[in-house]
Amino acid sequence: MANIHNAYQEALQGYQEGGIPIGSILVDGSGQIIGRGHNQRIQRGSATLHAEISALEDAGRLKASVYRDCTLYTTLSPCSMCTGAILLYKIPRVVVGENINFLGSEDLLRSQGVEVTVVDDEECKELMSKFIRERPEEWNEDIGE
Amino acid sequence: MANIHNAYQEALQGYQEGGIPIGSILVDGSGQIIGRGHNQRIQRGSATLHAEISALEDAGRLKASVYRDCTLYTTLSPCSMCTGAILLYKIPRVVVGENINFLGSEDLLRSQGVEVTVVDDEECKELMSKFIRERPEEWNEDIGE
Repeated sequence: MANIHNAYQEALQGYQEGGIPIGSILVDGSGQIIGRGHNQRIQRGSATLHAEISALEDAGRLKASVYRDCTLYTTLSPCSMCTGAILLYKIPRVVVGENINFLGSEDLLRSQGVEVTVVDDEECKELMSKFIRERPEEWNEDIGE
Repeated sequence: MANIHNAYQEALQGYQEGGIPIGSILVDGSGQIIGRGHNQRIQRGSATLHAEISALEDAGRLKASVYRDCTLYTTLSPCSMCTGAILLYKIPRVVVGENINFLGSEDLLRSQGVEVTVVDDEECKELMSKFIRERPEEWNEDIGE
């Protein structure tokens, strides 16, 4: 059964590549992982491939009806761009690893009827806080600060 | 001087490639185009490379201070994902070719202090409405419908 640990594995892979350790998976209505990815700012010089965008990109072109049965898992609270992507495709459920290191647009998601569950995962928190301590400038760049 | 016609040229190139004809450019504080792109759903099988995301991706990694002097031009009113990207990077000005074929999250942009100017450009409207007539299914897929 897919869970936040699958997203964490993506984040860990990103960290091991020297990247920003945020991971995400897209899970369809049958419980299958249909997209996975991690932040690609450093690896690919990308300003837009946040973890959630990477997972959606990996899933490829899908019919609207597929998204509407999906759950998106992400290790960190989604920023405004990733929130907007969730709303664009009307993904009904988002599971967030943690929102201590960064609190994104969870309120906007909830106001639009998205079910947001924050699991407050220790692994997710530790890996992200470690990266922020080690490389604060790259982290700030990723959130437009 | 960069203007909406530069974004239209991107949209037209997309149309000529067989793609969804939406184009965007990112212009810095000195008036120079630093990123350009068009929707890549069909050309690259992409669920996230809307025109605005393509232009931001083309611009590459930038310091927060650069975005804060930028203007984003887009031929069509920005969807929630592209709106979120504009908010993430705190781009202060958005020039929209038209919002007749699609009305995006302009209210959210304005509520966050972004200056949104809709120029109601005939070229942009005609090209987009032509595509929607020709290929309604691909257009609906692009907006999650």
